[in-house]
Amino acid sequence: MKFKKIAIIGAGLIGGSIGLAAKRKGLAREIVGVCRHQKSLRQAKRIKAIDRGTLNYREAVEGADLVILATPISQIIKIAGEIAPYLKKGCLVTDAGSTKSKIVAEVEKVFSGDIAFVGAHPLAGSEKRGVSEARTNLFKGTLCILTKSRKTKLAALEKINSFWQAIGCRVIKLTPQAHDQIVAVISHLPHLAAVQLVKVGRKNLNFAASGFRDTTRIASSDAEVWSDICLTNKKFIIQAIDEYIARLKLMRNLISKDDKRGLSLEFKTAKSLRDALQK
Amino acid sequence: MKFKKIAIIGAGLIGGSIGLAAKRKGLAREIVGVCRHQKSLRQAKRIKAIDRGTLNYREAVEGADLVILATPISQIIKIAGEIAPYLKKGCLVTDAGSTKSKIVAEVEKVFSGDIAFVGAHPLAGSEKRGVSEARTNLFKGTLCILTKSRKTKLAALEKINSFWQAIGCRVIKLTPQAHDQIVAVISHLPHLAAVQLVKVGRKNLNFAASGFRDTTRIASSDAEVWSDICLTNKKFIIQAIDEYIARLKLMRNLISKDDKRGLSLEFKTAKSLRDALQK
Repeated sequence: MKFKKIAIIGAGLIGGSIGLAAKRKGLAREIVGVCRHQKSLRQAKRIKAIDRGTLNYREAVEGADLVILATPISQIIKIAGEIAPYLKKGCLVTDAGSTKSKIVAEVEKVFSGDIAFVGAHPLAGSEKRGVSEARTNLFKGTLCILTKSRKTKLAALEKINSFWQAIGCRVIKLTPQAHDQIVAVISHLPHLAAVQLVKVGRKNLNFAASGFRDTTRIASSDAEVWSDICLTNKKFIIQAIDEYIARLKLMRNLISKDDKRGLSLEFKTAKSLRDALQK
Repeated sequence: MKFKKIAIIGAGLIGGSIGLAAKRKGLAREIVGVCRHQKSLRQAKRIKAIDRGTLNYREAVEGADLVILATPISQIIKIAGEIAPYLKKGCLVTDAGSTKSKIVAEVEKVFSGDIAFVGAHPLAGSEKRGVSEARTNLFKGTLCILTKSRKTKLAALEKINSFWQAIGCRVIKLTPQAHDQIVAVISHLPHLAAVQLVKVGRKNLNFAASGFRDTTRIASSDAEVWSDICLTNKKFIIQAIDEYIARLKLMRNLISKDDKRGLSLEFKTAKSLRDALQK
């Protein structure tokens, strides 16, 4: 698999790392980067994540056989509509957004039948952002979930699968809905939980030890990215918050009733689950 | 400051690390360790955290001029009563329990006027435990909160202060209640939050990325230790849970109402607070 021209839209942590890895693996004759800021493009070029940069979406995507949308979610949907007229027949499009149902539904609407979109979510985020944080091996061993909708073309799915695998990911395929339900509990809820732990502790942060630091590290993430995530995965995030609140109330009641056995059981089952994760 | 005999009760991560640091700094002529398991004592002696070990509390504390209670909270209170008759006049006693009001109240009751107790909480925990995890520099730069109650003797407070400083801690002094209120939000609530995040995510842990791992790392902690913590800091933990639930409900409502500006503000203020913590 080798592409003549890959266009990466959004030269940040994810877009930059995709460029670095794709170049390392020789997956493209040319990689063109496009984003809103000249500065990021210069930096992406300097670290060799892209061969050239442009502020012009049309120029970036024309003639590309693979387009990667690596911007915050609301921009993915907006930009897909803007570039649609300029994509060549047979062009493959993928993305790196953290929610999938809304993106897949909206993006599939704007592309005509000869453009194939396969949504992707590499679970390689960090509280950091920007192309200065990009790394060639960011995706090494990282899980990447590809979406399979009713409109997904199997040949395109396999090519996109090969691409993400080639840059290091372990790939699995899910429906956009199954993806969103899983990440609501394993990524989005933990994020909201960390954000509100910081708020509750705000007056006493000078007493924070390593446990607090680890638990709340992700609260340093970008506000715009996370607002988009919340608003494009509302149903499953609200379900997750509701279950979480119910469980916190259960703990509260065990404490209130001095139920040492009940508390101990909660801690033990959580410990078993969490210990298993470390292996 | 040099002690003739230090008795460390509980040869685990904390007790073992205290022994290692005290020996490194030459703070005692002899350090005696006591705990429930011969195996831990042998290991503590092998790594030179103690000079000798015994299963007999009386033997350990007789003649000691400093006794350190480094067991789970419920045992600190129980053991204080058991050793009280054997402590020599002028003996100093400190502990390393994670809550303070209950310990200080109970322990001050069982010691007669010529024994001085000063509660301590070095914020150096970890999800790990056992003397095999002990390290000489565990307390280096670690915050240690000493308790100052109405019964605290100032001369004893200063000597205990010097001891914790000598093994590496930054020491501050608070009332037991002020301590418990602070750690409820900065340590206990984050712990309960992590435990229940693991429970909510239990069916999808194979999708966990680094964010989830960091956020829930402390859920691997010991169940008995944490049951004791919850039951000896009930009032402030319940207050913290209630504020946390109220804040999670606020996030839920912002999401439900598609309030992007409100959400973004929540994320931004949390990010500012958390970013400041990294400096």
